[in-house]
Amino acid sequence: MAEEAAVRAQAETVRRLKQDKADPDEIAKEVAKLLDMKAQLGADEGKHKFVLKTPKGTRDFGPKEMAIRERAFKAIISCFKRHGAEVIDTPVFELKETLTGKYGEDSKLIYDLKDQGGELLSLRYDLTVPFARYLAMNKITNIKRYHIAKVYRRDNPAMTRGRYREFYQCDFDIAGQFDPMIPDAECLKIVHEILSDLELGDFVIKVNDRRILDGMFAVCGVPDSKFRTICSSVDKLDKVPWEEVRSEMVGEKGLSPEAADRIGEYVQLHGGLDLIERLLQDPKLSQNKQAKEGLGDMKLLFEYLTLFGITGKISFDLSLARGLDYYTGVIFEAVLLQQENEHVEEPVSVGSVAGGGRYDGLVGMFDPKGRKVPCVGVSIGIERIFSILEQRLEASEEKIRTTETQVLVASAQKKLLEERLKLIAELWSAGIKAEMLYKKNPKLLNQLQYCEDTGIPLVAIVGEQELKDGVVKLRIVATREEVNVRRESLVEEIRIRTSQC
Amino acid sequence: MAEEAAVRAQAETVRRLKQDKADPDEIAKEVAKLLDMKAQLGADEGKHKFVLKTPKGTRDFGPKEMAIRERAFKAIISCFKRHGAEVIDTPVFELKETLTGKYGEDSKLIYDLKDQGGELLSLRYDLTVPFARYLAMNKITNIKRYHIAKVYRRDNPAMTRGRYREFYQCDFDIAGQFDPMIPDAECLKIVHEILSDLELGDFVIKVNDRRILDGMFAVCGVPDSKFRTICSSVDKLDKVPWEEVRSEMVGEKGLSPEAADRIGEYVQLHGGLDLIERLLQDPKLSQNKQAKEGLGDMKLLFEYLTLFGITGKISFDLSLARGLDYYTGVIFEAVLLQQENEHVEEPVSVGSVAGGGRYDGLVGMFDPKGRKVPCVGVSIGIERIFSILEQRLEASEEKIRTTETQVLVASAQKKLLEERLKLIAELWSAGIKAEMLYKKNPKLLNQLQYCEDTGIPLVAIVGEQELKDGVVKLRIVATREEVNVRRESLVEEIRIRTSQC
Repeated sequence: MAEEAAVRAQAETVRRLKQDKADPDEIAKEVAKLLDMKAQLGADEGKHKFVLKTPKGTRDFGPKEMAIRERAFKAIISCFKRHGAEVIDTPVFELKETLTGKYGEDSKLIYDLKDQGGELLSLRYDLTVPFARYLAMNKITNIKRYHIAKVYRRDNPAMTRGRYREFYQCDFDIAGQFDPMIPDAECLKIVHEILSDLELGDFVIKVNDRRILDGMFAVCGVPDSKFRTICSSVDKLDKVPWEEVRSEMVGEKGLSPEAADRIGEYVQLHGGLDLIERLLQDPKLSQNKQAKEGLGDMKLLFEYLTLFGITGKISFDLSLARGLDYYTGVIFEAVLLQQENEHVEEPVSVGSVAGGGRYDGLVGMFDPKGRKVPCVGVSIGIERIFSILEQRLEASEEKIRTTETQVLVASAQKKLLEERLKLIAELWSAGIKAEMLYKKNPKLLNQLQYCEDTGIPLVAIVGEQELKDGVVKLRIVATREEVNVRRESLVEEIRIRTSQC
Repeated sequence: MAEEAAVRAQAETVRRLKQDKADPDEIAKEVAKLLDMKAQLGADEGKHKFVLKTPKGTRDFGPKEMAIRERAFKAIISCFKRHGAEVIDTPVFELKETLTGKYGEDSKLIYDLKDQGGELLSLRYDLTVPFARYLAMNKITNIKRYHIAKVYRRDNPAMTRGRYREFYQCDFDIAGQFDPMIPDAECLKIVHEILSDLELGDFVIKVNDRRILDGMFAVCGVPDSKFRTICSSVDKLDKVPWEEVRSEMVGEKGLSPEAADRIGEYVQLHGGLDLIERLLQDPKLSQNKQAKEGLGDMKLLFEYLTLFGITGKISFDLSLARGLDYYTGVIFEAVLLQQENEHVEEPVSVGSVAGGGRYDGLVGMFDPKGRKVPCVGVSIGIERIFSILEQRLEASEEKIRTTETQVLVASAQKKLLEERLKLIAELWSAGIKAEMLYKKNPKLLNQLQYCEDTGIPLVAIVGEQELKDGVVKLRIVATREEVNVRRESLVEEIRIRTSQC
């Protein structure tokens, strides 16, 4: 606005000079100055024009991305339904206090809404806390449900690797008081089914138990008060080497070097039933009540997973910690493995695509009387899966259709818009997926080209002669074959010809 | 915290009195005071405990509500796909400036996010502005897409009537330069199809055109600068009587009483082709360029709608204005009619369930060079439809299933958990939807009761004898019939028996 005032003042100077019949050079100079200022102002306006983008860490899904997303969701939902889950949905934001004290060090990543009067609100950070709030609010003690929705984290985005600020979670949880490890085993079975169905390549599901971790910390000499923060350090082991984690424990978190080294020995361990048996004999761990309980349940879990036939992809891994505060028992995380090249001995992990665990205390935090509802659940991190599916599709050159249109209603001559409108309305009422070009007199070539571009398999062509004969010319795009079909048989003919697609 | 300090001070008083061996009555009195204060503090703590609720104007969808929601979405999506639409999705929030200047007086209802550093963000208010931003950003000049997602408005909620602060919109839009009124007619056809499919009772789709409104305002003597605000007043006619709207125009908005009265005559008019013809002959309107264009296109629209066979439910209504700033041509709104009782002459409108129109300038507002992409679209307001479907379901006593489970894997005796786990894993791999109770030794009666409660049609019972014989006992819950099925035929048998459901 200041610039605009300057331009007006300059224009006034020019006007006065002209009025005063001043030296033409003088006038020309001042006019040039004026034009300059105007140009400047114009350019500034251009600069001030807003940026055309989506917010940092978010993206649009165009038709192609949606087609991939819907494929992945279909596989996931059909698995959840196969296991008898109901579905729920909750609001995208919660009262701020609902989220308070649930996420430990990650709470700083929560998006708050502006205080515009009324309640203080935050965008949901995951689907687990809203689920616990829902159970407590409705006094539900027993449910198996899934929930697929977007969650929000003000984290550093790394979008090429599938890390966004707005992203989908696909959660399946079992709430209720049941016999040990039966629902826990089903959660792992679900992860196994989904990752197999999506054909994402080789994977491993790491399993541990918070009680084993806590017992391990205790016997290593970690003070009780440091359990959660040391747990957070261990959680970083999938991204940074042990030496760094150790120095964080000792340096930042004030753990004794001896305790850290003892932890260092345990967290190298991973295996199956044999490792569980060995640790149940471990002179220190076997004396710790928590660890003993955790190891006992882990043994039971492996027995059930053996019956499910999936232990080949399961690894009991003492380095698995999971960041969130609310876990109380079994925890797990699925990672995709990638054989970078044949010379490396161990497959390289390309990151977590699913995780979860048992959280028996969370619902009680919401219940006015603190009544507990034991829960176990799994969350599929779908964004990384989308990235992989997108890359694969691009590599494969498969042409993906983004509509399901069965037939284009076309005309061979001019002045047939009315006939096209009548025919397409007939097809729509019969449930046929049909399109037409929004032109009064489209060229036949353009109509055929549209089918090629969008993958529409059939063209129903109306023309003067066909109308007289009571037929429609049906063209099969792939073969260029054309047949005359009686108008009353057209719907049936289209159904038959598109049922194989 | 102040209360806590007071309690501590009081406790100190008591301690000192005791130390000083003061009068026991004195001590007793001060102790009583202390206990009172502590009780008070406890009660306050209770009060300060957070409220267990969803934010104002929002709600959870439990499994039953989700079942209804998914039914409605299915009908809507299948209509959108029948018309050849692609699907897109955009983030739940946009840069704040993306939404600025698009909603006129309603902008105050936008939810802003808290400034936590970085970009200023707002929750989307509708799906139309994000769509226009998407088109401009990706330089798309031609698309037919649908988008089903939640939008956010800090409005006064009236939840029993289906008005929420977080609610779904189901949008279908056609963008591109086409021959007049062909895409516009398709949008109305879509509204007609969806409202018919959902069997919501009788409805009418009111149609008008912004150009007709503007022409009408001009010939009534409304100054150009007041067009939008007078348009907002007319928009209220579906909720408040003409007298109130008139007094807002004259009182608050400073319109001359004569102009208001002239508007009052026009906005009473509604009808079909006959009314359009009459207005094309109207001595004043026919002289106005805008009105003439609008009326000419309205005539064309009615011709196309006649070919679609849907004019019976369409009413050209001069009182229809629509609140949003961005409309430039045809506008429409569908309302459900309710025959309150047989004595009223006119059916009572129970509110709008769909609306839309043409907005040819919106994409240009985002394009750096102002390039226009003409658009027309419709938005289905699904929350009111949910309310109606929910009420109807409740009245009908239809028992709605919230899972699709085909079979419960059960056992007749104890110690058969392992056998149940093995059988259910077999069924899952064959794609059968199967559940089991998460108990080691559930009672058969409880297992059968679970099927009754949740509507599972079949029970696969394993028992000692069946295992020996290589069979599974299949029980049909509805008839209580039981048949022994060879284990290798079980999957096929379950498929056949549940294919009719």
